[in-house]
Amino acid sequence: MKAKITVKLKDIVLDPQGNTILHSLNEMGYEKITKVRQGKVFFVELEETSKEKARALLKEIAHKVLSNPVIETYEVEIIG
Amino acid sequence: MKAKITVKLKDIVLDPQGNTILHSLNEMGYEKITKVRQGKVFFVELEETSKEKARALLKEIAHKVLSNPVIETYEVEIIG
Repeated sequence: MKAKITVKLKDIVLDPQGNTILHSLNEMGYEKITKVRQGKVFFVELEETSKEKARALLKEIAHKVLSNPVIETYEVEIIG
Repeated sequence: MKAKITVKLKDIVLDPQGNTILHSLNEMGYEKITKVRQGKVFFVELEETSKEKARALLKEIAHKVLSNPVIETYEVEIIG
């Protein structure tokens, strides 16, 4: 089974890296861009036939290993 | 308008960071996980009412600024 885990900073957390990209884009002439927030994405494959079990396992991994729940949120999608 | 740009390594390119995460997960007991590839995601907001124009602009930015097309692929999604 294939899945995608997206981890992003909570909206209340500053994202200096995203801001740097935003300012660079604006300076390069891409002035229509008004906001950039950067996150991480993990494409995962696992040996599991139950979508429910896969989702539970991936949520656990996202929470315990791949994200910092204090400042980040995560989303788990089964993609195949 | 809001969009999401996902950038990932081409399948033929090695991903040592993803492999490190995979081995860590396996050592922690998450043995069902067989593959991990890491990518980046950018949540972008832009002043544009035309979805077509927004998509064209975002593809240009993804290609020229946010990715390295030699080793990475990107995907643009309008999300709101």
